[in-house]
Amino acid sequence: MEKSHESTTIEMGETSKLERRGKAPLLGSTPAIAAVVGHNKGAAKNKKGIAIFDLVLRIAAIATSIGAAVGMGTAGETLPFFTQFFQFEAGYDDLPTFTFFVVAMSIVVGYLVLSIPFSIVCIARSHAVVPRLLLIIFDTAFVTLTTAAAGASAAIVYLAHNGNQDANWLAFCNQFGDFCQTTSGAVVAAFVTVVIFLLMVLLSAIALKRH
Amino acid sequence: MEKSHESTTIEMGETSKLERRGKAPLLGSTPAIAAVVGHNKGAAKNKKGIAIFDLVLRIAAIATSIGAAVGMGTAGETLPFFTQFFQFEAGYDDLPTFTFFVVAMSIVVGYLVLSIPFSIVCIARSHAVVPRLLLIIFDTAFVTLTTAAAGASAAIVYLAHNGNQDANWLAFCNQFGDFCQTTSGAVVAAFVTVVIFLLMVLLSAIALKRH
Repeated sequence: MEKSHESTTIEMGETSKLERRGKAPLLGSTPAIAAVVGHNKGAAKNKKGIAIFDLVLRIAAIATSIGAAVGMGTAGETLPFFTQFFQFEAGYDDLPTFTFFVVAMSIVVGYLVLSIPFSIVCIARSHAVVPRLLLIIFDTAFVTLTTAAAGASAAIVYLAHNGNQDANWLAFCNQFGDFCQTTSGAVVAAFVTVVIFLLMVLLSAIALKRH
Repeated sequence: MEKSHESTTIEMGETSKLERRGKAPLLGSTPAIAAVVGHNKGAAKNKKGIAIFDLVLRIAAIATSIGAAVGMGTAGETLPFFTQFFQFEAGYDDLPTFTFFVVAMSIVVGYLVLSIPFSIVCIARSHAVVPRLLLIIFDTAFVTLTTAAAGASAAIVYLAHNGNQDANWLAFCNQFGDFCQTTSGAVVAAFVTVVIFLLMVLLSAIALKRH
């Protein structure tokens, strides 16, 4: 009878380890159970911390990507002299790559705004797997779009600054200094967005692992 | 005594559910336990399938990224006519973006080769979390590098094909058709590598979730 009683106690401890998956623990007085519950709470807190940091990063990414899109979209310069037929002006729509940049960054802004509710769900229910999985997959897809836009525009900005003698492409930043500065800033903002995206993927992967 | 016996039986069932985390089950004769073990085996098989598919994709990515690097690195064309002072030739090192492309794709090839052992570890020990987490994080970082190289080169290849009237950059693909074709092929191979990378991240995320 002694032995049977002992095994019943062990059973309770083991059961409540299982119970932490969702149901309420049957007994909370044993120290072992308290330790388990405490550890569980610590993990949940940790996950909530990651989820909150993810939301903060997401808002920062919205700011930088709006900055990139608006910066590039409003970049333009009209030179103060003109001939009878020409007025010298530069705008983002003169270069197809910059147009792609504006479109891509606008799509990224849209995605980031739409992803905010999922990030909030991850905060509220820190054990939810599906929203986190969706976030990591779409984040990876959109980091690719952002990087493609940033990389392509960086190549063009480099050409605009330095030109290329072999291809006989002349730099135009001497004439359109303002335009070049604004577009360079937009490209930098896009690369900052890429870095924030990478941090978000890193956090999501760690949170998924801890599940 | 009857009741105590019943609770002991339940305990065994619950315990062996816990035991599947690593220790051998104490009793395997109960149908419930057999079902649990069967489900567990199915999940492990599923994970092994994902890990094998990951390895196959990784080898495919090595092939496409080597193709991209070598294709761009060997791209060159010398025109069949020359003046006393000039010989008209085009090579990837005439354009800094293409040089960046070759360097970046070589780094990606190196990373992919080094990642093969980790992928094999994921096949052999399908419950290992650390190698899979390392793979998903580094895959995401390197997909960014690949996309940046591919995007930047795509912008230059577009310029080489179409030129830009507003910036007065002339297309040179009429003269250097072969060179343009090879570089375009390399850029396409790089984008194929990006797609394979995205698939690998997707698979790793799903495998992490199933843990």
